[in-house]
Amino acid sequence: MSDEIRIIPVRGVGEVRDGDDVAGLLVDAFEAQGYRFESGDVLVVTQKIVSKAEGRVVDLSTVTPSETALELSQINGRDARQIEVALRETAKIIRKDRGILISETRHGFICANAGVDGSNLALASEVSMLPIDSDVSADGIRAAVRERTGAEVAVIISDTFGRPWRQGQTNVAIGVSGMEVVRDYRGETDSASLVLVVTEIAVADELAAAAELVTGKLDRVPAAIIRGYPYRPGNGRATDLVRPAEFDMFR
Amino acid sequence: MSDEIRIIPVRGVGEVRDGDDVAGLLVDAFEAQGYRFESGDVLVVTQKIVSKAEGRVVDLSTVTPSETALELSQINGRDARQIEVALRETAKIIRKDRGILISETRHGFICANAGVDGSNLALASEVSMLPIDSDVSADGIRAAVRERTGAEVAVIISDTFGRPWRQGQTNVAIGVSGMEVVRDYRGETDSASLVLVVTEIAVADELAAAAELVTGKLDRVPAAIIRGYPYRPGNGRATDLVRPAEFDMFR
Repeated sequence: MSDEIRIIPVRGVGEVRDGDDVAGLLVDAFEAQGYRFESGDVLVVTQKIVSKAEGRVVDLSTVTPSETALELSQINGRDARQIEVALRETAKIIRKDRGILISETRHGFICANAGVDGSNLALASEVSMLPIDSDVSADGIRAAVRERTGAEVAVIISDTFGRPWRQGQTNVAIGVSGMEVVRDYRGETDSASLVLVVTEIAVADELAAAAELVTGKLDRVPAAIIRGYPYRPGNGRATDLVRPAEFDMFR
Repeated sequence: MSDEIRIIPVRGVGEVRDGDDVAGLLVDAFEAQGYRFESGDVLVVTQKIVSKAEGRVVDLSTVTPSETALELSQINGRDARQIEVALRETAKIIRKDRGILISETRHGFICANAGVDGSNLALASEVSMLPIDSDVSADGIRAAVRERTGAEVAVIISDTFGRPWRQGQTNVAIGVSGMEVVRDYRGETDSASLVLVVTEIAVADELAAAAELVTGKLDRVPAAIIRGYPYRPGNGRATDLVRPAEFDMFR
């Protein structure tokens, strides 16, 4: 019915390589499933294929671990070279405790190991890093989808982050193009005509989380289309979702 | 198509009052929209109507603020009686800074003002509190839906929480019945036959976030049905999503 939202998996993309055209691969795969992009769609792309296409993959055989990486490796039992890559991607260490590294990335995101991880890559010796500027990556995908299909979509690049206080990880937005990232209710009135003064919903993160319900981790579904969500077109950036340090009680 | 997920708003529930049968109201409203509950649906119910039906509403005219509430009120300009209710609902104060109260509730959830808030209530003088045990509330709704419709659904009660490091709030699960709350990939292998050792996805929180895309804050949509998500039936509890303090680096 008309006011439902649909979350549609994009399957059959295959292995993505350095230099590949992510938007083109997704358009082809989506059309091969019998769909077409429509204006108003939100295209959520998981970080891994974006990083691969942008060459943000390192073979660990080329990495020499530092003293700090070797120390952490002794505690957590992970490959010291992978930890070294995470440290190089870290702008600021937020916590280094019991072998867990919580990093602030150059983008400002706070996450484990600066987003460096070894899953879903072509070789067991490889690890991927986050895109250099994932908002710019989202811009590129959005422009390419428009050029290929004529559809004016919003694009979110998602990654899987842990969070304080709660178990388990969820997908959040690390790159956004074409929409407002927050739905701001401040000043609007609720059903009892009271003013809602503080509510700002991080809709880009909720869209990323919703997409994870179909992309998962193992199923070779690197993207999803969310259709029917009335996002507000705009120039929001994923980095707008980073709370400035001076307003953050938990760094 | 068959592997899409649908997020369907439940509209037309009307004002919920103390003692109301939430499940019955939702079944009636959903059927009035032309739908039927199906086994395998996830019913996401926003906290406010559950709290109202359970009488978890206080009229502030009955509340006398403590010294601490008056002090916080002087800083943040909010009603000292509302702050007093939040303090009474707080098992432990996690932070009290610049007029912001971050509480650990009796359930173990960490959120602003112990989940006490004044929006979407019948009277401007009222505030709502979280259900006493929102997992038990979810059990009751699930059993009542089964009895009314024969459908075996999972139930999530959602609330809107802030989080460290990121701007904006998202909906999370504060009550769960009938499903595993975490999708545990530990020990499963990815596309390159590597072992994914650490990934646990908090799917109950992602489902709560997805539902928020249709429930919103102002639109009188107090619940959503998520159809087509292959959740794992089980006895997960929302309190399982609370990270134990000894493993939490950010309290």
